[in-house]
Amino acid sequence: MTTQRLEAFSDAVIAIIITIMVLEMKVPEGADWAALAPLLPVFLSYIMSFAYLAIYWNNHHHMLHITERANGAILWANMHLLFWLSMIPFVTGWMGENEFASLPAAVYGGVLLMAAIAYLVLQNAIIKQEGEGSRLKKMVGKDVKGKLSAAAYVVAIPLAFVSQWISIGIYAAVALVWLVPDRRIETNLSAE
Amino acid sequence: MTTQRLEAFSDAVIAIIITIMVLEMKVPEGADWAALAPLLPVFLSYIMSFAYLAIYWNNHHHMLHITERANGAILWANMHLLFWLSMIPFVTGWMGENEFASLPAAVYGGVLLMAAIAYLVLQNAIIKQEGEGSRLKKMVGKDVKGKLSAAAYVVAIPLAFVSQWISIGIYAAVALVWLVPDRRIETNLSAE
Amino acid sequence: MTTQRLEAFSDAVIAIIITIMVLEMKVPEGADWAALAPLLPVFLSYIMSFAYLAIYWNNHHHMLHITERANGAILWANMHLLFWLSMIPFVTGWMGENEFASLPAAVYGGVLLMAAIAYLVLQNAIIKQEGEGSRLKKMVGKDVKGKLSAAAYVVAIPLAFVSQWISIGIYAAVALVWLVPDRRIETNLSAE
Amino acid sequence: MTTQRLEAFSDAVIAIIITIMVLEMKVPEGADWAALAPLLPVFLSYIMSFAYLAIYWNNHHHMLHITERANGAILWANMHLLFWLSMIPFVTGWMGENEFASLPAAVYGGVLLMAAIAYLVLQNAIIKQEGEGSRLKKMVGKDVKGKLSAAAYVVAIPLAFVSQWISIGIYAAVALVWLVPDRRIETNLSAE
Repeated sequence: MTTQRLEAFSDAVIAIIITIMVLEMKVPEGADWAALAPLLPVFLSYIMSFAYLAIYWNNHHHMLHITERANGAILWANMHLLFWLSMIPFVTGWMGENEFASLPAAVYGGVLLMAAIAYLVLQNAIIKQEGEGSRLKKMVGKDVKGKLSAAAYVVAIPLAFVSQWISIGIYAAVALVWLVPDRRIETNLSAE
Repeated sequence: MTTQRLEAFSDAVIAIIITIMVLEMKVPEGADWAALAPLLPVFLSYIMSFAYLAIYWNNHHHMLHITERANGAILWANMHLLFWLSMIPFVTGWMGENEFASLPAAVYGGVLLMAAIAYLVLQNAIIKQEGEGSRLKKMVGKDVKGKLSAAAYVVAIPLAFVSQWISIGIYAAVALVWLVPDRRIETNLSAE
Repeated sequence: MTTQRLEAFSDAVIAIIITIMVLEMKVPEGADWAALAPLLPVFLSYIMSFAYLAIYWNNHHHMLHITERANGAILWANMHLLFWLSMIPFVTGWMGENEFASLPAAVYGGVLLMAAIAYLVLQNAIIKQEGEGSRLKKMVGKDVKGKLSAAAYVVAIPLAFVSQWISIGIYAAVALVWLVPDRRIETNLSAE
Repeated sequence: MTTQRLEAFSDAVIAIIITIMVLEMKVPEGADWAALAPLLPVFLSYIMSFAYLAIYWNNHHHMLHITERANGAILWANMHLLFWLSMIPFVTGWMGENEFASLPAAVYGGVLLMAAIAYLVLQNAIIKQEGEGSRLKKMVGKDVKGKLSAAAYVVAIPLAFVSQWISIGIYAAVALVWLVPDRRIETNLSAE
């Protein structure tokens, strides 16, 4: 199986996730600022999740683009990643509606962690299939950035019960690091 | 009509179904574990339905990929399949919110059965169009796996009124069997 | 502008409409037949709307497929059609939840009528652009079927206030007539 | 990175936004005109937002179509635009359900303004990448139309607190101006 349709399917799922997330922002009853104010945390958590999903789309897209064929392991590793990404609207809404309470902030980090692990698993499945001299392997190397992100979530999750703002600060910092597109791959592509 | 756009349309519909299903997981009121606990059955039923839809996407995609042209019968058999797949989010939510009660578990099986039958009907419509020497026919043979799955649902549905856990165990077992991609088709494709 | 992306965009919108429609089927509170029974009219109206949207996708797809270029008039005529199709989930839900009451049945017919008119307007915009010897013109001729469908809705709408079942019977009959794919276009395509 | 998949992703997101917007039109309880009447402002605001999203799809599509490659700046400028477009269903619902009250009308204008700015930023990012002799630059010139639209929103937002109808009139007028497809680009394309 070529990766073309896997890429198209994943793109569609991510496009839908990023868009339905806004449905968690329930239209408020009143028409004044007082009605809008409680939505501020929902809005802020929406911005963060939008950024995360955009980052995943971008990196996932780059990764599949340089992958030529997909076997069963890649297919299911990809579905596993999409599963955790599909959880983001739910945890975003839960965190936002509870004004960034500790448990929702920790669970939000848990979903980010599972998505990060799923991404690493997918990456390894692709590298394994490509075998020695894997093009993706050369690009990501040991993927220190990906592994450090996962480690950051592991640290951030228990810290949510000390102060959720520390956790959210860590999530935001990781997102900012990734907002810069993966130059390793970009550079490699441009060099061709 | 070539199957290319039929494939794209079906992919889009399945991508949407798999993603909106998460909307059935309503954001809970509180911010503690007590608020999250009632969502556990919804979450578990979501995992099973996600797996089923991923399996359908994968097999459906393989099947249409090797089909070159679509006549009216194939088109409507495909729409019929999409109809039953579109019922999955509803029955998933109903089963999950009622903590796997008997009737919802039986109705869930009913939708799986209808989808399985619709898949077999679509398969036959394609084989009939391709005529003797049908490529799909060679691959699926008598499709024992597909027919046994349908038979398993037929058994599981009444058993839900004895114990829903038997039915759910059967649904999960069938899903696990299918999680292995259809090697008959994969092997055939690789051999070319 | 080529019609390729217009076709892809329209396909995506119709795929989304057909799928979100199921969200109008709210998961009921109880887990028994009594809880499911009120959903029967919603389910029946969902089947009819699913069939209508599948028909529109099929015919629209055929029509755009043989159209090579799109000007501004075609673009906006197409958007106008998508607008009315996007109203279908709303009127389907309204009709279903009110057990096919007269006014919702009439409004449902009104949306079908507007969509049918929008389709004819789009068809004319394409024929006008193609000029004499238009390929689409040859295929649809005077499009008696399309015009009779619109006329049927005009008759059915006021009849909803006599008996909604007459109107719904007419809607269902028109859908059945269209379920047969447009052979005029199919034959023409096959002949090439 | 070629713009092809960026275009496909953006198309998908806009298709989803335009379609889920209708979910803000909640199915009313009753089955008479009295039940339908409160939905009129929601319906009217839906029409306006549908037109705006159709305009954005059309112009965005033209713009990306003539752009060959996308760098990181273009990618994120595009995501930024999609973010503000994804806010449209929310503000449409809020404005409609409050019968065009002042604050929702102003906030609606705020989202239109942010989307217009995001569009200009994206346009500049593309022109900057293309360098001197940019094809897009030649087509849009100083983009007086785009800048005047943004200016119109700046004027309309505070006016909502004088009379929301002035603001809404301005939004509608700007939409009407844009309903004519961008002839600068169309002419240029046809000339080739």
